[in-house]
Amino acid sequence: MENLENSTDCKETVSPLNNSGSILNSTVSRHEAMGFVLVHAGAGYHSESKAKEYKHVCKRACQRAVDRLRAGGLALEAVTAALLELEDSPFTNAGTGSNLNISGEIECDASIMDGKSLNYGAVGALSGIKNPVLVARRLLSETQKGKLSAGRIPPCFLVGKGAEQWAVSHGIPACPTEKMTTKFSLSGYKRNKRKMELAEQVETKRRKQSHENDIGCLEPVGDIMVEGEENNSACLDTVGAVVVDREGNVAAAVSSGGLAMKHPGRVGQAAHYGCGCWAENARDVSLYSTAVSTSGSGEHLIRTMLARECSTAMQTENAHQALLEAMQNKFISSPFLAGEDCVLGGVIVLRCCSCGEAQRSEDIQALLVEFLWSHTTESMCVGYMSAQDSKARTHISRLPPGAVAGQSLAIEGGVCRLGTTSD
Amino acid sequence: MENLENSTDCKETVSPLNNSGSILNSTVSRHEAMGFVLVHAGAGYHSESKAKEYKHVCKRACQRAVDRLRAGGLALEAVTAALLELEDSPFTNAGTGSNLNISGEIECDASIMDGKSLNYGAVGALSGIKNPVLVARRLLSETQKGKLSAGRIPPCFLVGKGAEQWAVSHGIPACPTEKMTTKFSLSGYKRNKRKMELAEQVETKRRKQSHENDIGCLEPVGDIMVEGEENNSACLDTVGAVVVDREGNVAAAVSSGGLAMKHPGRVGQAAHYGCGCWAENARDVSLYSTAVSTSGSGEHLIRTMLARECSTAMQTENAHQALLEAMQNKFISSPFLAGEDCVLGGVIVLRCCSCGEAQRSEDIQALLVEFLWSHTTESMCVGYMSAQDSKARTHISRLPPGAVAGQSLAIEGGVCRLGTTSD
Repeated sequence: MENLENSTDCKETVSPLNNSGSILNSTVSRHEAMGFVLVHAGAGYHSESKAKEYKHVCKRACQRAVDRLRAGGLALEAVTAALLELEDSPFTNAGTGSNLNISGEIECDASIMDGKSLNYGAVGALSGIKNPVLVARRLLSETQKGKLSAGRIPPCFLVGKGAEQWAVSHGIPACPTEKMTTKFSLSGYKRNKRKMELAEQVETKRRKQSHENDIGCLEPVGDIMVEGEENNSACLDTVGAVVVDREGNVAAAVSSGGLAMKHPGRVGQAAHYGCGCWAENARDVSLYSTAVSTSGSGEHLIRTMLARECSTAMQTENAHQALLEAMQNKFISSPFLAGEDCVLGGVIVLRCCSCGEAQRSEDIQALLVEFLWSHTTESMCVGYMSAQDSKARTHISRLPPGAVAGQSLAIEGGVCRLGTTSD
Repeated sequence: MENLENSTDCKETVSPLNNSGSILNSTVSRHEAMGFVLVHAGAGYHSESKAKEYKHVCKRACQRAVDRLRAGGLALEAVTAALLELEDSPFTNAGTGSNLNISGEIECDASIMDGKSLNYGAVGALSGIKNPVLVARRLLSETQKGKLSAGRIPPCFLVGKGAEQWAVSHGIPACPTEKMTTKFSLSGYKRNKRKMELAEQVETKRRKQSHENDIGCLEPVGDIMVEGEENNSACLDTVGAVVVDREGNVAAAVSSGGLAMKHPGRVGQAAHYGCGCWAENARDVSLYSTAVSTSGSGEHLIRTMLARECSTAMQTENAHQALLEAMQNKFISSPFLAGEDCVLGGVIVLRCCSCGEAQRSEDIQALLVEFLWSHTTESMCVGYMSAQDSKARTHISRLPPGAVAGQSLAIEGGVCRLGTTSD
């Protein structure tokens, strides 16, 4: 449990399906800015040898978000700051170091949602921009400015070359693909290319033998999606973050290089409304503000609309139970994935509401923040930090021994109370 | 009400917000194939002078779908057949005759969903393919074949150049953009270009006057999105269809050239899961099979996820009331569009269940089909036909006099009972 054991203001449930949890209040200084960030560096397979790198980038991403919160930034700014750090790491499958597609190119997906305005921006299959999240963020801001000339509605989702041109024309600099390609992404590409060629040879041989009524036992070929390997980051997917700020606003973002060896033009869940991220402030019928960011097999996350489903599920009392049921019923056993025996994905979830205690006090505004993660992949790397913490906590969550990836899940989380003065 | 007045097997509610309706059973022949199709040729503004063309293409699309149903085709095949006809019409904003983007190019969005398998396929910002729906359909079929070599998950959503390459490599022929451009789309483009230039001149003048503290009354400029004009198809959007087949399976599809003068790479609701179309057979918790196809301002339809919302709403008893409430609460007054004073869109909805009567009879399988359309745009052109009908019925639904487009709605629909022998 690494750093988690040192936690003083957060208690977490570490065993899968364990439903216990308690609230340990943080010490609150007057006038102190408040807020909380939870990030992930992908649900997939994180080798022990690379664990340090993944945790390190999560830690830096949390710190970047908290810096923004402390400087008075709102959730949307903080979540963008976290994503920039996650995208810039050469170890994550987002921005620099993204998986290469079958043509050896980088094409990124990213989206961002603001729980206060419910505005949204997304880019898909975007090449030549170092930080795809910045384009999604800018699309969101432009939406808020109202209509374009002659009453045209501004776009919330741009793809491909058009997205790249739009970004550059809005002051986001172009970046040559070579600068975003790393030795890890290149070696992963070469290894996967060999795997595919081998798989296709085996398939041809199998067809030939089948034709000759002689089906022998052929050597199985490694699976690009599921198998983890030393120095192989290609099986990891998507980074993301969820934030609540001092005003109780939530925001969520997600960014991904997509599946290794994907077809050019393939767009995954990270650019899909309701699938990659979701953020919704509490209002009328919703008691809780919720923010979700997902990771994993894009097609599975799209067809189950997992981000929005998890957000909707979080309106019931028991957050842990709600997420567990959502992952089980709306993902692993989803009717939208009937016939799929290996459903790979993960989510980070944050929900918050005003503390009961705070309602009795006039000068203290307090937020109860529940944060959780769950995944069906071998592992998921997360980090979290409140604006009162001196440093971020990181953790690589793993499926329990004997659990089968794609069929079982791990779920963990914690609770944290944040407070500040209201003046 | 044109052809509707001659309707013998369907009764419809013609006044907005009117909630009456009755069931008039159709005459059923033994062994006759059954099924029903409802299509739309866009929610927008349909001039009286063009009404005939729009109704004609809807009629042909219905006929194409019914031909497939009569030949034993299932819902997915029939809905594709309807879409091909709608895309091929030079009058609709889909396939041939699509709106041009700001660079004068055609970029199409399309998606299709099968209610039986819940499989889905979509293309966005696709150029150079005559029938975008065929690519979406092929993506759906390829998904059903299982994984690609080395365990790669097949894509369900492709965009831009990559989508075009995938289509061609899967045997769908390329089509030069010039062949898809019509005199209508070109003249619309030129007119809109002038409008934009004028709007930008007015804006510059306004800014200058504002700077000089002399804000005069400037000539307003036409709005590309809302205003209807003679010979102007640019304000129309998206075509689509919903079908139920003899087995009670539903399917839905949608196709669009997108907003006139959109930015290259902009993807609208027609390529967005849950937003452009939705189809879900009855199962466990769902009593009704539902299929939905939307049209209108893509960004509004995306952010409200209107297709899926309407489908979910249709699980309550009164279909008319359910759609009315969904359009009012989940679209016009949606918190996701707070601040938008003009919310433009339309839906066609089909829901069906086994007839109560049929359950008492052993050799008759009967389906109760409820079909509805609703729109906040000035008008919406629809057509519908059952496999027992000799010809399709078409109708241009209009907002009632005095109603404001983008703030009020029209809702109409009918009920039809379909039956056949079960052997």
